[in-house]
This record gives sequence, C-alpha cells and structure tokens, in this order.
Amino acid sequence: MTVSFSIIKEDARTGARAGVLHTLRGDVETPVFMPVGTQATVKTMTPREVWDLGGRLILSNTYHLYLRPGADLIREAGGLHRFMGWTGPILTDSGGFQVFSLASLRRIEEEGVWFRSHIDGSEHFFSPEKAMAVQEALGSDIAMAFDQCAPYPCTYEEAREAMERTSRWALRCKEARRREDQALFGIVQGGVHRDLREKSAKDLVELDFPGYGIGGLSVGEPKDIMYQVLDYTVPLLPREKPRYLMGVGSPDCLLEGVARGVDMFDCVLPTRIARNGTVFTRDGKLVVRNAGYARDFRPLDPECDCYACRHFTRAYIRHLIKANEVLGIRLTTIHNLHFVLELMRNIRRAILEGNFYDYKEAFLARWNKN
Amino acid sequence: MTVSFSIIKEDARTGARAGVLHTLRGDVETPVFMPVGTQATVKTMTPREVWDLGGRLILSNTYHLYLRPGADLIREAGGLHRFMGWTGPILTDSGGFQVFSLASLRRIEEEGVWFRSHIDGSEHFFSPEKAMAVQEALGSDIAMAFDQCAPYPCTYEEAREAMERTSRWALRCKEARRREDQALFGIVQGGVHRDLREKSAKDLVELDFPGYGIGGLSVGEPKDIMYQVLDYTVPLLPREKPRYLMGVGSPDCLLEGVARGVDMFDCVLPTRIARNGTVFTRDGKLVVRNAGYARDFRPLDPECDCYACRHFTRAYIRHLIKANEVLGIRLTTIHNLHFVLELMRNIRRAILEGNFYDYKEAFLARWNKN
Repeated sequence: MTVSFSIIKEDARTGARAGVLHTLRGDVETPVFMPVGTQATVKTMTPREVWDLGGRLILSNTYHLYLRPGADLIREAGGLHRFMGWTGPILTDSGGFQVFSLASLRRIEEEGVWFRSHIDGSEHFFSPEKAMAVQEALGSDIAMAFDQCAPYPCTYEEAREAMERTSRWALRCKEARRREDQALFGIVQGGVHRDLREKSAKDLVELDFPGYGIGGLSVGEPKDIMYQVLDYTVPLLPREKPRYLMGVGSPDCLLEGVARGVDMFDCVLPTRIARNGTVFTRDGKLVVRNAGYARDFRPLDPECDCYACRHFTRAYIRHLIKANEVLGIRLTTIHNLHFVLELMRNIRRAILEGNFYDYKEAFLARWNKN
Repeated sequence: MTVSFSIIKEDARTGARAGVLHTLRGDVETPVFMPVGTQATVKTMTPREVWDLGGRLILSNTYHLYLRPGADLIREAGGLHRFMGWTGPILTDSGGFQVFSLASLRRIEEEGVWFRSHIDGSEHFFSPEKAMAVQEALGSDIAMAFDQCAPYPCTYEEAREAMERTSRWALRCKEARRREDQALFGIVQGGVHRDLREKSAKDLVELDFPGYGIGGLSVGEPKDIMYQVLDYTVPLLPREKPRYLMGVGSPDCLLEGVARGVDMFDCVLPTRIARNGTVFTRDGKLVVRNAGYARDFRPLDPECDCYACRHFTRAYIRHLIKANEVLGIRLTTIHNLHFVLELMRNIRRAILEGNFYDYKEAFLARWNKN
C-alpha cells in the first residue's frame, strides 16, 4: 500500500483521533494541516521555510499546474517534488473544484467538463481519466478522484446529480489509475443533504479507497451547517482510513473538524489573509494593516514565538505592507502558517494527553471573545 | 571617532586597497558592496538572509523613510536598526539624490529644496539641517551630507552651481551634526568636469570628513566617462579615508571602481533587475523570464552555490516569475546579491593575495564575451 494510516489514540469525549499517515516520502502525524502550494509554491515561502514551520504534507493544485507550466513540463523536470524542491509528500487535488469555481464557460457532460482557462481563455477538457493522467504526470503521493462539487446554495436535484456523477467518476478514476506509487483518495459529495451524503459515502466506501475526502463543504454555507454535515457524514466513513475535510483552515473549524473525527485539512485562508495584512492571534484575527497599529511596537501576537514575532513589530510589518514590500506579506504568512501548524501540534498533543475537549473549549472561548 | 578606516593592503598594479571600516556596530571588510534597503527592508529579504549572504553594511534611504513611515515613528521604535531588525551598521543617504530624481515640483534655494512627495503629492522642504535631523532620528551609523546632484547631461554652469552649493551645504551639515555616535561623510560633486571635481574635492577635504562619497556618477553618462572621472577624482581624496562611489553596482563597474581606489559601493541594480527576472552569471546577464528557459533544468548559474542555484532550476524560477509568485523574485534576488557579495569577497582576497589585476582581467574577459 502506497499510503497507510495508523491510529495512535482516539479521544474519549469527542471523535478526535491522533494518528500517523505513512507515505513513501515519510510519515505525517495527524491531525494534519496541509499548506497550499497552488502554483508549485506555498505563496511567498521557500520549501525549507515551510518545513521549518512544521509543514510535512503540502497540497498542490492540478488545475493550475496543468494550465501553467503544464504537466508535461513538470514530468520532464522529474515530477513536482523535484520541480519545486519539496522532498516531503504532496497531495494533489483533482482539479474538479477549480474547474467548477475558477474556470468559465463550463459544459458538464457525463464524459467530463469543458472549461476555459482563467489565464488566457483557452478551451480545455477534463475527465476522470484526464485528471488521473495529469496527477500521475505531476507524481504526487496522494491523488484525489475527479469530482463534481455542487455550489451552495443549490437545489436538492443539483446536489443529487453532482453526487451521483462523483460516484461514477470515482470508479473511472480508480480504473484509470496506473501509478503504483501514488495513492488515490475518493471524495464524498452530497451537499447539505443527509441522505445524499449517506448514498455518496456508501458508493465511495464500496470502492475501498485508502482515504476519503469530504468535499462540497466550506463553500459558503454557515459553519453550523458544515458541522452538522460532518456530524452525520464522518461516522459513515471507515474508522481505519484517513478522513480529509477539503478547503477548511480557520482555527475554529480545524478544532471542530478534529472533534468530529477529521484527520486532514487544507486551506488557502491562513496564507491568503496574510497577504491582505490580517493575522491570527490567540484572541482572534488582527488586521495589522489598520492605521491603529502604525505605532504599535508589540509583536503580531505577543504569545507567539515564530520568526516574525520574535524579531518584528506590528508597526514595522504595517509599514512594509503599506509600502508594498514583499517582506511584509512574508512575515504575516510565516506567522499565520506557524499559528495553524502549531495549533495542529497542540491539538495532537491534547488528544494524546486525553484533554482535547478542554483544550478545544478553552481555545474557542478566547478566540470567540473578540 | 565613530567610524575609522584601516588599510590592510594596497595593490601594486592598480589603485585597489583592501581595508576594514570600523564602526560601533562591527567591522566591515572593504571593498564592500552595500545592499540597499530603501524602505527599511532590502527588497524581498529578511535581515537574517542579507546577513547570511554576507551583507555587513546596508544602505537605507532618508527620503523614503522620511515620507513613510516618518522619521519620528522610527525614532519612537528605537531607531532604524531596531525598527527593521538589522543589528549591523547602516549608512543612510542624505535624501539629496532622491529629492532631485524622484520628487516633483522642486524649487532649489540656497536654504534648501522644496519638493512634492512621489507618494501623495504633499509638499516638503529639505535643507542640510533637516537632512541631518532626519538621519539623526533614524540613527544610522554613517550619515551622508545633503548634496545637490546635477543631472547628466547638464551645462558646465549647472554642474558648477550644484558643486559649489554642495560644498556650502556640506559645511552646514557638519555644523548641524549633533550625534556623537553617527559619522558624517561628505560628497564630492562636479559632474564630468575635472576642474569642478578638483574644486569640490579640495572644499570637502578641507572640512575633514571621516569618509568621502563620490556623487553624480552612474547617472546616465557612459561608463568610460565615469572611469575617467574616477581616474582624476580618487587621487584628490585622502589615502587614509574610505571612498564611496554612490549608486554603482554592476559587476564590471565594481571591478573598475576598486581598481581606481574605491572602497564602498551601493546600488539597487542587483535587486532591481532580479525582480524583472534578470540574473547575473559568470558569462554576463541572463533573462530567465525569457521563453527559452521554460524547459531549462539547469541552475541560474551552474557555477554558483547560492540557495537558489543549489535547489532550483531556471525552468522553475521562470515559472514562478511568469505566475507572479513572490518566491521567484526572492530566488533571483538571493542569487544576484550573492553574486555581487561573493564578487566583493573574491576581489578582496585577490587584493590580499596580490593578484587583483589578473582576477579583474579574467573576470571581465568572460563577462564581456557575451
């Protein structure tokens, strides 16, 4: 098996578990947050910096890399790991979510999806087979099945159609898979409808994937709805397989996801808001680019020991961001990634020590106070 | 003395010297190239990265910092070193060059210069006294006298007026100086006219500064003209004081400057062209953003051992730059700064070993072949 999963400890009061995801490029402790390297780089960061912050498994985007620089070029370079200089494991999404959210002029057929590039308007076709071929050219350690993600809100009928097609496409992905050194995870869809999630989980579990993504969440629905969907969806998935909540990365959602039995997360949120001058602190978000911080000579987060907080002040970082200096968004990115990766380490330690519930409640009480 | 200078060795065949600039924040080996941190950051770099590349003395811009975030704010922060997290010595220019090249609506009077901010159009006044007050608020280790830099080309009369005013302003700067922990360097002007350079050098040397800038060069004149001006200007300056050729940083000019007895240089060129996707190699400049490098899996410079060249290919860096990824310009910046700082180390070693002339000729023969 290319990728396998061991559960080290299950929490008594919640669904949380601490585990290890074993890959050919090293073990990854779970629950894990995957920094996102959309275009073969975690934005503003070197691979070494991501590693030093504790990133062990990163996500990269099939849709973006297929369009630029192209999967063939990356294959020629020796694969995505060599191309971008990341020696740890990589998970690639299937391109499905981006095709449905970024590209224009989509025509969805049973065979696949026609879309236009958001870069140059050129027309392209993605199918389950194509998504697998591209991911195999990239050479990621974990590929995701090509899915159809229904928007939120949408009708029950739309959600049902997308879910059923996702199941049929999952089978085609499995049959198209050629690389023995690449694991393939299925994706559960079904929107916010319990019966659709049940059907989707049943279909996917029958295909016996080594891991399962939970897709179609964090797409605009209220957080409570997302938590409800997780409440009834996660128990439908095999206990011994890793569960991956796609596109989720705000600290509160990470805690709530772990509490419901999720093992893996990815999200551009920490790095994206960093580039807008917003950082995480124990007391919630702080918009450091605001004028009120012009003469604030404290660190971004006085309780943080990341490189940015050990060496620089809010006043300096605000100056850099106002002056469009790259170092500004480098420092906020370092801080936010550190914040989230440290949160995951603390979560795992709390699970192992048997006090995850208390840790979560204490964190959220402070986080939500502002 | 706040700043002093020791000559370790003088070259037999050229005017080159190897020395040490002693500052209150550490010794700096010369000849030295100063990376430029215009807005209190060497663009895209952390202070630690600049240090690790061998940067020991950096330059920051009084004009820019005065406008944003303001000298008072930086004083409140504990000075520029603490504000930007650079513990080594800093040289600040006087703002003169920027006022004359960047700002608009200048009115030059004997008292000083009125100008409009390039950021928001607000009106400001700089005088020798003001330039000193701002540099003292910043707290740099070496301040530069407020000078008037004549454009190239200009009439003899314009060059003469700017030079004579620069001499009068140098005296006012010296008299306005208050900080005992900050050295003040004078600036020789006079354009491309030998008699004006002679008069300027005589005026400035009479004021007995601990170091001398050579201004008004690298402002558009052909390189041969610049070398000629250096040929007759440098010998007018005291042997035992450091000589600083302002705004020069291309590898060939660094070598020619050193050969004529210059000890200090600064320039945005290495970092600016890096952000446009151009890098230095032993064989001259290489525009890595060009399509021809899309599938070139060699390092930027196969003979370089910088972080960028040890880990990444031209194809990857070109991809990053085309995709507007910050890491692309970080890597080209690291490479170009490494290239120039290593060149300076090699120059110094060659001077100490007595083979600077041969080193220079060999470097230039290869550099100019392309």
